[in-house]
Amino acid sequence: MINGEKGASRSIKWGMVGGGKGSNIGYIHRSAALRDNNFDLIAGAFDIDPQRGIDFAKELGVSEDRCYGDYKKMLEEEAKRKDGIEAVTIATPNGTHYEISKACLEAGLHVVCEKPLCFTYEEAEELEKLATENNLIFGVTYGYSGHQMVTEARELIANGDLGEIRLINTQFAYGFFAGPVEELYPASKWRLSSKNAGPSFILGDVGTHSWHMAETMVPGLKIEELMCAMQRFGKGRELEDNAHVLIKCNDGIFCNLWASAINSGSHHGMKIRVVGSKASIEWFAERPNQLRYEIEGEAVRILERGAGYLHDSSKETDRIGAGHPEGLFESWSNMYRRFAIAMDAASRNDQEFLKTFWYPNVHEGAEGVKFVEACVASDKEGAAWVSVK
Amino acid sequence: MINGEKGASRSIKWGMVGGGKGSNIGYIHRSAALRDNNFDLIAGAFDIDPQRGIDFAKELGVSEDRCYGDYKKMLEEEAKRKDGIEAVTIATPNGTHYEISKACLEAGLHVVCEKPLCFTYEEAEELEKLATENNLIFGVTYGYSGHQMVTEARELIANGDLGEIRLINTQFAYGFFAGPVEELYPASKWRLSSKNAGPSFILGDVGTHSWHMAETMVPGLKIEELMCAMQRFGKGRELEDNAHVLIKCNDGIFCNLWASAINSGSHHGMKIRVVGSKASIEWFAERPNQLRYEIEGEAVRILERGAGYLHDSSKETDRIGAGHPEGLFESWSNMYRRFAIAMDAASRNDQEFLKTFWYPNVHEGAEGVKFVEACVASDKEGAAWVSVK
Amino acid sequence: MINGEKGASRSIKWGMVGGGKGSNIGYIHRSAALRDNNFDLIAGAFDIDPQRGIDFAKELGVSEDRCYGDYKKMLEEEAKRKDGIEAVTIATPNGTHYEISKACLEAGLHVVCEKPLCFTYEEAEELEKLATENNLIFGVTYGYSGHQMVTEARELIANGDLGEIRLINTQFAYGFFAGPVEELYPASKWRLSSKNAGPSFILGDVGTHSWHMAETMVPGLKIEELMCAMQRFGKGRELEDNAHVLIKCNDGIFCNLWASAINSGSHHGMKIRVVGSKASIEWFAERPNQLRYEIEGEAVRILERGAGYLHDSSKETDRIGAGHPEGLFESWSNMYRRFAIAMDAASRNDQEFLKTFWYPNVHEGAEGVKFVEACVASDKEGAAWVSVK
Amino acid sequence: MINGEKGASRSIKWGMVGGGKGSNIGYIHRSAALRDNNFDLIAGAFDIDPQRGIDFAKELGVSEDRCYGDYKKMLEEEAKRKDGIEAVTIATPNGTHYEISKACLEAGLHVVCEKPLCFTYEEAEELEKLATENNLIFGVTYGYSGHQMVTEARELIANGDLGEIRLINTQFAYGFFAGPVEELYPASKWRLSSKNAGPSFILGDVGTHSWHMAETMVPGLKIEELMCAMQRFGKGRELEDNAHVLIKCNDGIFCNLWASAINSGSHHGMKIRVVGSKASIEWFAERPNQLRYEIEGEAVRILERGAGYLHDSSKETDRIGAGHPEGLFESWSNMYRRFAIAMDAASRNDQEFLKTFWYPNVHEGAEGVKFVEACVASDKEGAAWVSVK
Repeated sequence: MINGEKGASRSIKWGMVGGGKGSNIGYIHRSAALRDNNFDLIAGAFDIDPQRGIDFAKELGVSEDRCYGDYKKMLEEEAKRKDGIEAVTIATPNGTHYEISKACLEAGLHVVCEKPLCFTYEEAEELEKLATENNLIFGVTYGYSGHQMVTEARELIANGDLGEIRLINTQFAYGFFAGPVEELYPASKWRLSSKNAGPSFILGDVGTHSWHMAETMVPGLKIEELMCAMQRFGKGRELEDNAHVLIKCNDGIFCNLWASAINSGSHHGMKIRVVGSKASIEWFAERPNQLRYEIEGEAVRILERGAGYLHDSSKETDRIGAGHPEGLFESWSNMYRRFAIAMDAASRNDQEFLKTFWYPNVHEGAEGVKFVEACVASDKEGAAWVSVK
Repeated sequence: MINGEKGASRSIKWGMVGGGKGSNIGYIHRSAALRDNNFDLIAGAFDIDPQRGIDFAKELGVSEDRCYGDYKKMLEEEAKRKDGIEAVTIATPNGTHYEISKACLEAGLHVVCEKPLCFTYEEAEELEKLATENNLIFGVTYGYSGHQMVTEARELIANGDLGEIRLINTQFAYGFFAGPVEELYPASKWRLSSKNAGPSFILGDVGTHSWHMAETMVPGLKIEELMCAMQRFGKGRELEDNAHVLIKCNDGIFCNLWASAINSGSHHGMKIRVVGSKASIEWFAERPNQLRYEIEGEAVRILERGAGYLHDSSKETDRIGAGHPEGLFESWSNMYRRFAIAMDAASRNDQEFLKTFWYPNVHEGAEGVKFVEACVASDKEGAAWVSVK
Repeated sequence: MINGEKGASRSIKWGMVGGGKGSNIGYIHRSAALRDNNFDLIAGAFDIDPQRGIDFAKELGVSEDRCYGDYKKMLEEEAKRKDGIEAVTIATPNGTHYEISKACLEAGLHVVCEKPLCFTYEEAEELEKLATENNLIFGVTYGYSGHQMVTEARELIANGDLGEIRLINTQFAYGFFAGPVEELYPASKWRLSSKNAGPSFILGDVGTHSWHMAETMVPGLKIEELMCAMQRFGKGRELEDNAHVLIKCNDGIFCNLWASAINSGSHHGMKIRVVGSKASIEWFAERPNQLRYEIEGEAVRILERGAGYLHDSSKETDRIGAGHPEGLFESWSNMYRRFAIAMDAASRNDQEFLKTFWYPNVHEGAEGVKFVEACVASDKEGAAWVSVK
Repeated sequence: MINGEKGASRSIKWGMVGGGKGSNIGYIHRSAALRDNNFDLIAGAFDIDPQRGIDFAKELGVSEDRCYGDYKKMLEEEAKRKDGIEAVTIATPNGTHYEISKACLEAGLHVVCEKPLCFTYEEAEELEKLATENNLIFGVTYGYSGHQMVTEARELIANGDLGEIRLINTQFAYGFFAGPVEELYPASKWRLSSKNAGPSFILGDVGTHSWHMAETMVPGLKIEELMCAMQRFGKGRELEDNAHVLIKCNDGIFCNLWASAINSGSHHGMKIRVVGSKASIEWFAERPNQLRYEIEGEAVRILERGAGYLHDSSKETDRIGAGHPEGLFESWSNMYRRFAIAMDAASRNDQEFLKTFWYPNVHEGAEGVKFVEACVASDKEGAAWVSVK
């Protein structure tokens, strides 16, 4: 149980790029990182508008000399300091992730980056290589993977309680773009243009979360072939607002993934069901404190977060006891806690520890980019099967 | 509200082939047909074993001279009588449906046949043609389509309350075959052999129900292209025990259909979600008295069977008032009631009425066979897209 | 599993009083009794209007000479016949139950009576005595008690799986009378007048169902003391439209019962939770195919009707297999099946069998009347505790 | 929407008594208070063991000279400072709340105290009087009342959307004490002794939460009379482990409240249903992001936290958008945010603002104590009705 203790033995010295005033995602990053003092926010370049960024940094209590107008300046100045930042979170528009991540890695800093990591797999591989070669932690914020019941699912599967894994059905399907929202809310327009959002809208935005959830629950999962049918239901949309993907994975595992922005009446709609030869599990991100565990031939069981019968590794991140609901903030906090633990281990060069320690990392981020690339390629060929290596 | 009144002005004179002693499906047919006196059971050839069939017919109260040892005899003898049967239900093994249906139609009888109607689309077309040309009603027992909330869904969609229809996600995915059940229960073996079950196991057995549900809720739905990936997870199985089908339909409607016998921990698992540009509906056959109605931007509504706010056509088949659950027997009863109404209209040659009166008919049965044939063809080509005409 | 077999070795010769044309409850009685030929409907006095009753009887296929204009005539004429009826169902207005039941018993007939059995416990005792002394079966239609999962609950409790029983929380709380429905639907007025409905509206109408459910699940349950607070929320109502009852039972079991007609937004609302020292069970009559089984310290389990893991006595009345929903009609059918079995045993004078065979009987009906009487008495004394013997 | 902004214009200077190392409730207080910088933790006497308290304060980053060994010292020293604390949270054992609260108020500090506020209503009144006379804010941590959907319920009711309020059914019923836990976990023993826990176990511990929830949702709710039946199911328990309370409130509102520690299989079990003449609402604290809104005669609606259709005052505290679950930490954060706003207003002596600004305050805490006192008195008289003034 977490009662305010840091994950690592110390707080990580931390800066942010983006996520400025009024940004909800910036707030979520800070809420998660600062929780239980896993990170200390001591520098930041929070805004594309330098002055606004500096003002906001001050509001957040960053000392004046470390409130920066742009990230390059931050990297330059922090590098000169003995107490310079060790890690940077990047919460800027998608199109800038690659460039900023690269610069941070080259500056010898650990990175936490929003997803999608970048727009091409080539770029992603480069970032992964840079991180690996420089012994740097590179976390990607697949924020759902920190839920306690996701850990529980992972444990059940790793223990073989489901038997051999056969099927994964997963979706992230909301309805906000069912109508012509880009006309009503111009701020939402960028998501639908390849220039700003990359080669895909809904798969890149949320389909990658669903795929990552599958990877998290089923360790070792790899795509071998996939096919993807994309649709553009909203009039005049350049990028897809709905997509269905069928995936052949290693060990004969078959996956059906649905990503949608036009699933009318659904708010968020992230669900996953993993079917094994003995049992299935099912999880719905909107009721994250419950995990259905369905053993064939037995009564369905509803596992509850925090309950005594869960695996120790799940309960380790418990903050409040069974029956009291945790939410998405706790999931993010758990993820950032893992980032801090990994960064601390890297700074001690504890490769032994890092070999088995799991957190949503640049490799998984790169896999997400590869997944989207393959989906786009499949769709272009008329939703044909394409190999993924 | 139905308070015991027949659907038509009279009871239909009815015989059965198959569905003998110990057959659960035979019992379900009789429960549905005899309810509210929509049919009178006056003849039958209930068993492959003539004497057992005759004995069972007597048990059911059929008069001695109309208890037959085989269906050919029944057709022959009944044809000689003034008060001979008008309609026959066929509840025999799948491989015999075509032959018996054909004989019944040729004898000038209305037919109700279990699904799958037959093994090839060619045969199905022939049956459809025979029925049409002879002004005979040919019902196929898609037994879920009679639920009151299915009618309600159909009405909402027909009224445009969902806007334009975009997506259909449907599944019929149970877990009974997750383990090696064919070894434990030899009686289940026939389902896995093409000789007895036709070219497909799970798609023919239950996938056709899911597709039919889609057709029922979205009138006018047609397959244009589909692709199907089949799996055989159980060792040594000839036919598929799991299948995923993606379907491009008319008007840009896209459908994702999952049929499974290895969905561990699930009993029945028939669900359907229809997504329109304004709203979605969702129905789960295991909780059939509720229909989720989700208007984008509004609170989800749970519509209840029997409630005053439903459409009149839905409430027409209500037997017990809102809050009191109806089940699958009522769904079947409603279906058989429709068969009786249609047969009565056909006997009066009321083509005007029949033009708009809906019941699960031979055309829909033939569409089911075509659907399975296309799925098998797609799978054989490596889950490639195939056109369906 | 029931596949059309009668419960007893023969069908019971049966007549009805009341439940005429347009009566939904009459339809439900016939649907249940005639199912699987447990009863043969061969006589009836279905209506207060003799001619309407006779016409309706003919419609139902009763032979002309046994279509009666009133129940007295029916008792008189049937008594003269060798093939006269053995059993009568009474589905008339509440105020007539006592008189007709008594007459039927005195005519040596088995009785099935709607609840409330009568208006006073004195009358109820007299009926119980009459039935017992004459070796007659007297069933009372507590129609929810026939659900398969109610049997399962009873078995779990009888087996000690819940430990010692401590608490029962039960409700039957719908909302139809939240507004001034008696003005909008004059047909509903009688329920609110003591002259027609007896000393209580909502407790007599549905609270007795809830209490009976408790008795059914927890065999041997007895009231020792109770207190009842009644309310009349609708303006000008003579009888209560809402009531809360606290009950001290034998063995320290405590029960909290809520009956309501003004529970806005709820259709039916019958729920029961039984809490034991080791586990609880919970059942909701609107989703009758599921039973929550909650062992303290373990994950909640959802037991499913028809599943292989249920007790044999529960599965005995299964008609359709797990995953296919049954509804209220099946519950009633199971109840009537038990009536037939009991009547058949009584006609063979098999007292040994009847000693342990359970069905909702006149004693339980009398307990319901006593319960209501005690509630009314408590409320009159300002919701004071009253002893119940 | 909250994106990291403080509730008030400034952070409140804050100290804590109790809630030391290993205390989960202490952690929850700090998580809530420090969120969004509503409070600055600058002093503390965290432990009954002075040195352990001082060490823990240091761990939390409190400056060395403000880490105190006991609360008296803290009050004394802080009073001498210009930058002394303005507010204190008390998270000590129940028996000490009165004494410490009083001392803090006398020292001119705002107070946040755990519930139960104290053991007698006389003490509670004294505290309320002290706070009022000295213009001090006194918050009581009814931590569930901060949930966004609780605010939404309050708004719906205040707007008259439910019509006139008639019934409140509420429960807080968990199962942890079903077995002899006091033997297995000696740390839980104190709850069952009047010396440590006050005159009641389960009503004081959680029943007060349920009653407070009722008060929060239905503004102006007052108890006029109540009756309470307590049980001690666990062998040898001095205090009750289960209680049922019936409450007659102002305006004819009737409330049925159940508090339990022996509700086997339930984790937390806080539920509330408020029934009005037009509609009901229902909320379950374990799925706090949904609120059922049931208008009589219409389909049930499931309102979702964060949705655009909620009242502005509900959405004001939104941190993450609809579909992303919030949990109990957010509820506590919202409550502490209200404390900060109130304290800030009090320090500006803005009585006008405070007149209408709601937060769970000492008056509500005192009402909770009065409620428990009345329950205990009723139970002693054999669960008789007692007046409450």
